[in-house]
Amino acid sequence: MYLDIKLFQCGRMRNIKLVLEYDGTNYHGWQKQPKLPTIQGKVEDALIQLTKTPIQIIGAGRTDTGVHAEGQVANFLTELTIPTIAFQKGLNTFLPRDIVVSNVDEVSSDFHARFSAKSRRYRYTILNRDYPSALRRNAAYLYVTPIDVDSLDAICRCLNGKLDFSSFQKTGSDRLNPMCEILEASCYRKDDYVFFEIEADSFLRGMVRAIVGTALKCMKKANKNIDAACKMFHDIMELRDRSMAGPSAPAHGLSLISVKYNE
Amino acid sequence: MYLDIKLFQCGRMRNIKLVLEYDGTNYHGWQKQPKLPTIQGKVEDALIQLTKTPIQIIGAGRTDTGVHAEGQVANFLTELTIPTIAFQKGLNTFLPRDIVVSNVDEVSSDFHARFSAKSRRYRYTILNRDYPSALRRNAAYLYVTPIDVDSLDAICRCLNGKLDFSSFQKTGSDRLNPMCEILEASCYRKDDYVFFEIEADSFLRGMVRAIVGTALKCMKKANKNIDAACKMFHDIMELRDRSMAGPSAPAHGLSLISVKYNE
Repeated sequence: MYLDIKLFQCGRMRNIKLVLEYDGTNYHGWQKQPKLPTIQGKVEDALIQLTKTPIQIIGAGRTDTGVHAEGQVANFLTELTIPTIAFQKGLNTFLPRDIVVSNVDEVSSDFHARFSAKSRRYRYTILNRDYPSALRRNAAYLYVTPIDVDSLDAICRCLNGKLDFSSFQKTGSDRLNPMCEILEASCYRKDDYVFFEIEADSFLRGMVRAIVGTALKCMKKANKNIDAACKMFHDIMELRDRSMAGPSAPAHGLSLISVKYNE
Repeated sequence: MYLDIKLFQCGRMRNIKLVLEYDGTNYHGWQKQPKLPTIQGKVEDALIQLTKTPIQIIGAGRTDTGVHAEGQVANFLTELTIPTIAFQKGLNTFLPRDIVVSNVDEVSSDFHARFSAKSRRYRYTILNRDYPSALRRNAAYLYVTPIDVDSLDAICRCLNGKLDFSSFQKTGSDRLNPMCEILEASCYRKDDYVFFEIEADSFLRGMVRAIVGTALKCMKKANKNIDAACKMFHDIMELRDRSMAGPSAPAHGLSLISVKYNE
């Protein structure tokens, strides 16, 4: 797809919002890094190929290495009058097959993919059986011990409202405010798969994976005693100390499902 | 996983049945070929690593390059007394991550994965929207024209009983009998995905992909006239001539779901 870019110049700055789906397996996360393949880097490369102009994009959530997205949101400013549908088709032409632009909109000038976001929703997928999956090997964490979904869902129900998530923040993270408001958290099973979904106004670095790893650890220790599992998890939160929580669940089970805005 | 194979010798020949799940993307189909990666080749390699003995396996269906399986079946003969669970765990240790043994059983000596099969079931997956999927890029065929599922399902309902599928046999195929008995065929939609499922006692080479490609072509031409779509498809079948049918739908949408036996 080759556009004659001179035809698309205008004086007015437009703000373009992208929704992105990606398989994070082959990328070092969202954020651009010199010499490493990242999602942001690939999208900006595709924008250069399409527009012949360097354009910097802003992402709603900085997904880690190996983490996927069904509904990541990004935005960028441009003077080009290229129609939104041409942005979508053009970017999908230049992007590798594991990154796809699923929607493009023109939004108001004050829209900021990261700072305007009201909430983000993540889904963590666990394959709960004693042998792996060939077809979903990069999209689900194989956990062999039978999962007691009732205990995990009870732990989710403790995750309600504004809470201090210091115990689930990646060590060395620079964020000063450890408070996040959980809007919804739940756990459910479908056949051999167990899904953990969580929506919050914001997330600390590594927070979902630390919560999932810790919840599994509490569930295992509590041995189907739902109250004991919840108390253990609650006590770990109270300690506000990452070293007291469980291990992080692996990256490849995690996907950023959607980002919500006031629209 | 290292077994001391000398401990597992016995005089009696055992017949071992495997159920396999695989992502066919990186393979030149099921059947072993010199110097090309194939599913059969990889499973036999893993068997050599596990048992230190060359063992030939028999597959129920010879899936083509790029075709997947959720429930391929294979069997092999061995004198080794290795427990079935150790076969499963051992093979999964040595197999690449895109091939998984999901079940192992010891079966009677007359069981033959191919000739004992009563039926095979395939599923063809179509992504029906105007942009691709990053996460399912290797597991669904992107078809942009809106699909009229009612017409496709009506065509499926014509596929009933013992029929001559010469029009849907890969050119150059060596099978003499073009009759296959269709046990069930249906088409349904779930969100952006359209699924086409077909179960038959046997299949000619390339048959499912030719049926799907032809059904889509008839649907498109008939423009929501269900009777016209069915008549067109029926007429093509009657011609018994591959060159009169539609193009083959691409391999990566196809998956061998299950194989049934009298048990």
